[in-house]
Amino acid sequence: MKTLIKQTTVITVNDNFDLLTDADVVVDGENISYVGPTKEWQEEFATIIDGRGKLVAPGFVNAHTHAAMSLLRSYADDVPLMYWLEKRIWPIEARLKREDVYWGTMLALAEMIKSGTTTFADMYFFMDQVAEAAEEAGIRAVLCRGMVGIGAEADEALEESEQFVKRWQGRGDGRITTMLGPHAPYTCPPDYLKKVLDLQEKLNVPLHIHVAETIDEVKTIRNQYGVTPVRLLNDLGFLARPVLAAHCVHLTEEDMEIMSKHNVHVAHNPGSNLKLGSGVAPLPELLDKGIIVGLGTDGAASNNNLDMMEEMRLAALLHKGVNLDPTAITAEQAMIMATRMGAKALFLDDVGVIAPGKKADLIMINLQRPHLIPRHNLVAHLVYAAQPSDIFLVMVNGKILCENGKLTTLDEEKILFQAQQRAELLLIEEEDEQ
Amino acid sequence: MKTLIKQTTVITVNDNFDLLTDADVVVDGENISYVGPTKEWQEEFATIIDGRGKLVAPGFVNAHTHAAMSLLRSYADDVPLMYWLEKRIWPIEARLKREDVYWGTMLALAEMIKSGTTTFADMYFFMDQVAEAAEEAGIRAVLCRGMVGIGAEADEALEESEQFVKRWQGRGDGRITTMLGPHAPYTCPPDYLKKVLDLQEKLNVPLHIHVAETIDEVKTIRNQYGVTPVRLLNDLGFLARPVLAAHCVHLTEEDMEIMSKHNVHVAHNPGSNLKLGSGVAPLPELLDKGIIVGLGTDGAASNNNLDMMEEMRLAALLHKGVNLDPTAITAEQAMIMATRMGAKALFLDDVGVIAPGKKADLIMINLQRPHLIPRHNLVAHLVYAAQPSDIFLVMVNGKILCENGKLTTLDEEKILFQAQQRAELLLIEEEDEQ
Repeated sequence: MKTLIKQTTVITVNDNFDLLTDADVVVDGENISYVGPTKEWQEEFATIIDGRGKLVAPGFVNAHTHAAMSLLRSYADDVPLMYWLEKRIWPIEARLKREDVYWGTMLALAEMIKSGTTTFADMYFFMDQVAEAAEEAGIRAVLCRGMVGIGAEADEALEESEQFVKRWQGRGDGRITTMLGPHAPYTCPPDYLKKVLDLQEKLNVPLHIHVAETIDEVKTIRNQYGVTPVRLLNDLGFLARPVLAAHCVHLTEEDMEIMSKHNVHVAHNPGSNLKLGSGVAPLPELLDKGIIVGLGTDGAASNNNLDMMEEMRLAALLHKGVNLDPTAITAEQAMIMATRMGAKALFLDDVGVIAPGKKADLIMINLQRPHLIPRHNLVAHLVYAAQPSDIFLVMVNGKILCENGKLTTLDEEKILFQAQQRAELLLIEEEDEQ
Repeated sequence: MKTLIKQTTVITVNDNFDLLTDADVVVDGENISYVGPTKEWQEEFATIIDGRGKLVAPGFVNAHTHAAMSLLRSYADDVPLMYWLEKRIWPIEARLKREDVYWGTMLALAEMIKSGTTTFADMYFFMDQVAEAAEEAGIRAVLCRGMVGIGAEADEALEESEQFVKRWQGRGDGRITTMLGPHAPYTCPPDYLKKVLDLQEKLNVPLHIHVAETIDEVKTIRNQYGVTPVRLLNDLGFLARPVLAAHCVHLTEEDMEIMSKHNVHVAHNPGSNLKLGSGVAPLPELLDKGIIVGLGTDGAASNNNLDMMEEMRLAALLHKGVNLDPTAITAEQAMIMATRMGAKALFLDDVGVIAPGKKADLIMINLQRPHLIPRHNLVAHLVYAAQPSDIFLVMVNGKILCENGKLTTLDEEKILFQAQQRAELLLIEEEDEQ
């Protein structure tokens, strides 16, 4: 089953950041088999796509989200963080059922696929439902059961995590990989983190954890342990393992040196960090130190969308303004983080770039739009001006998941109906409890 | 000619910020004549629009742009500000012809209308072409000829400004109003600003000026005059007139008190201020002092789009993150700035709100989208999650300018072709000169 994308423009996001014009892209099964000058092909193709006036780029990698929280989109906004968590999010999350997580994830997948995300990293609970949804949708997913190390469910979470990894690692034609997800240093005490490390040694999958998201978190850890969250994790031997650290907003110089030394990967979530008033992460410094950084949306309850184009734009714009330096993060850097480096942050080395031998995870952008004319610089267009609705085609693992705004693997109407219904039921239960 | 929008949801953006469900909106000629509970109408309507599953809101007011600069979109990005201006923007602007400004403006209007902007404030040159484009498109416009008070064209700019005001004030069924546009304190010396004030007294139109956009500007003015840009303008009597001050990023406490006392209006441009590395304006402080603030995109060369939804979102997100306060600017405040307060900032009191007697400048949003489900809070949806492509209908002065993504007054294909061609010609001329 071969697909030919003919006479198109390609932002490869390879190491040279090659931009090809009058190019053909051939997809053979799950993989890209040719990227180069357009030519007269003698062989037969199952599908031929006209690439004129369009742009091919790697699909986006959402390096940190809680997909099912889409059910809580706009449920609580513009309120202080601890009120948001304690009075709004945690009580409603406690009422979520398996089916809510399934349909909440489906809602997120519909949005993510339509906006060009081809891989997402998720941390939540009822993860079998998340994995089932991802398997059905055809998207690539790096999944972990979030573990809170205090309270009655601490040991159960470890047990569920192990089962989840064993059950799902490599499923869905290899699209689904797994991690272990201790929630954060402030919710997982050192003894618990040691148990997580034992499990990590046994299962040999990476770790996904929230680190230094807020000033309050850093203060709490300092008060309890006398060190920063990064130092605490380092002292426990946590950072010697493969780690994806989400947020990393409040870091010391020493923290960043430790992270660089241990090759800790970071998921930068500019939109969520702004919306919750958490702050602005030191992104230029992290990149200067050679740290691998991907971009994430975080959950829709604190964003309020899962649009990676917006995160890419925020990553490029925010640090320029805050550092009073228009060269702080370039469009090219933002795009690399949203694709190739994001994949690397999730320990995937076969996606995030348009090159022969890589998995065919790609998007096509329709350039015939007022906001994408004139075409002085297509990378700048994609980062600073494009919109999700410019996406004409989304392909994962060689399979088309969205074409002309229509999802091919998911029933969008049914998903919207189920998500709206379930959200309304959760509110009725809330009233009943009060 | 009456239009009925039936059984819809309305974010009025009136003083009470009423959100109406099961509501009808009636448009009679240029004006809104009814907003209230849905009912059985006995009279005949020329057009009836099904409002179910949709949201009616005021159209967006773009309080500061240079529309024709859309021709320079992505022409120069991620470079230091003075290099951007002196080596890139000013040389190419010097080669712009009347027809370039016309088609560049048309490109901007196509983008603005499709993304829900119903009023824009523009400062540029060849303003007759800008006004002609706005008149043809049917959009509302507040226009001024930008004046630079140094160099050969200083007096000519004054003369052109006067002619422009006399020729265009109130044209296009009252949709076009005018201002005087001295560019900035650092490009207009005090003697020149005095001439502008004389002209303002004669013509009685408001003033539109860039103020305190960068730290360098503030330093320059301090070195030359020993005061801040705001103090300089105040000492000249400039702020006693009706003034729209764009940017206002670097202000002292005294500056803000002066602005509050004189009721100076502000156009806040968060996207452009970030992209050029200018900084983050003290928006919460300005609003706390009761200052009227609208939102603007600035030109597409420094944004790189004219999407007011993005500016609204940035205004709401940015100040939360920078001030470590998730309540700093609410969704409601952002929406007010993008509509009613933005209109007020442009000295328009009959648009920016859905209420009887006001001009029918409105948009309809299609809510049946993955990123707008579930519907916990529609204002949060519009500010934090919506996209331009969710806009189903755009109306200005009672006339539909865009429906289902199709422009009704403009030939989009021709505009894209002309804009692309003219941009390419400008680059060929650039090579010829080198």
